[in-house]
Amino acid sequence: MERIDSTSNQRIKNWAKLLQKKERDKTGLFLAEGDHLIEEALKVGIVDVILSEHPDQYRFDHVIEAPSHVIQKLCSSRSGTASVAVCRMEEPSVLQPDRVLILDGIQDPGNLGTLIRTARSFGFDAVVTSETSCDLYNEKVLRSTQGAVFQIPVVRRNLSDYVSSLQKQGVYVIATTLAEAVPMKEMNVSDKMAVILGNEGNGVSLELQKQADQRVRIEMSGFESLNVAVAGGILMYQLQKQVKI
Amino acid sequence: MERIDSTSNQRIKNWAKLLQKKERDKTGLFLAEGDHLIEEALKVGIVDVILSEHPDQYRFDHVIEAPSHVIQKLCSSRSGTASVAVCRMEEPSVLQPDRVLILDGIQDPGNLGTLIRTARSFGFDAVVTSETSCDLYNEKVLRSTQGAVFQIPVVRRNLSDYVSSLQKQGVYVIATTLAEAVPMKEMNVSDKMAVILGNEGNGVSLELQKQADQRVRIEMSGFESLNVAVAGGILMYQLQKQVKI
Repeated sequence: MERIDSTSNQRIKNWAKLLQKKERDKTGLFLAEGDHLIEEALKVGIVDVILSEHPDQYRFDHVIEAPSHVIQKLCSSRSGTASVAVCRMEEPSVLQPDRVLILDGIQDPGNLGTLIRTARSFGFDAVVTSETSCDLYNEKVLRSTQGAVFQIPVVRRNLSDYVSSLQKQGVYVIATTLAEAVPMKEMNVSDKMAVILGNEGNGVSLELQKQADQRVRIEMSGFESLNVAVAGGILMYQLQKQVKI
Repeated sequence: MERIDSTSNQRIKNWAKLLQKKERDKTGLFLAEGDHLIEEALKVGIVDVILSEHPDQYRFDHVIEAPSHVIQKLCSSRSGTASVAVCRMEEPSVLQPDRVLILDGIQDPGNLGTLIRTARSFGFDAVVTSETSCDLYNEKVLRSTQGAVFQIPVVRRNLSDYVSSLQKQGVYVIATTLAEAVPMKEMNVSDKMAVILGNEGNGVSLELQKQADQRVRIEMSGFESLNVAVAGGILMYQLQKQVKI
């Protein structure tokens, strides 16, 4: 088995650059940290190479043994993970979805990852983010998805164009807002639905609010304030198609 | 107006110690960072002193002007906030609550804060955390609550004793689990309810699962995995008492 012992190794230096968005975008590669994410990435066949302190645990044909300080060079968190994988981004296809989560400018990596995980859990077909949302391959986003990111298509689009194209396909689009909105219990539910959630500070852009077929708000008894990932969870729970009882 | 220009000032040194849990527990004081949290703390009268680069913005009788580097000495985040307040912890009383959120070993500060914020939004009367949950006065917890922490009683208890006492008061206690649980749509709903949510990795402890009146799971169509703050949001939405439509 191959072994790399030094952080001066040229390949380690190149892979470490993948901690930056610019380099990820240029190469189409990203890093997955920790056993759980690597296992999920292996299932969908996007792993190029695994570096690990415990290489024998992986059944994969390209594993490199490396000591802790070399692994840490490729990790953004300080969690002391023993393995990291170099993976390929793959542009997923989103064909005629019945349930779509649309994210307009989500900034917090934890919120983005949690929303992707929730969309997967409630059987949504795709997640579509605006060009202003935070980067999907950020380590904290990947970790918060708990691997769901490899099991549901997530794409970045111009949302105004994308919402128009959904509407032409007969998808009913709702936007979450606080003002001029119907309570969630009264919202129209259709066979094909898309939900737009907005930026943590500013909500859904006015343009998309106008474009949506309905504006919906979550009924609250107290404080008019919910975290966007919580609001998304409540809506997606209501809209899931086939529920396992 | 008083002004402090040096981080060597003895009061600054003492207040900076409040960034550590041990010192907060010893003194009963904590730090609230940023305008929004400080405004919320002022509303409930728990502020001792405010330090700010822009002291004129506060109508309060004990404001100290301080430059950025002094303020930063009292802040755990690198967000560059211009104000910080020294506040008093107050043990709230939780008398005969009708809706209680019980948190068994929540570890992530963002999850704890978000759950407190959501409980407030859905009109819950109190949040009760186990002695193993993360510290309430951690800066990230306070920030994630968005100030809701000052508007809903949050107390730390031995949960087994606390659940027994609730049951004696006629409160129906549900625990969220994945196994041997009824789907949420079929759960019993009573006038007085408590919901137990568990640790991010291990869920609700077996002891509390047994003690609960009913075990409930959130129906999912996909992946069997939800973030605990999302799961809590879905349950609390269903259980809120008076909904403003």
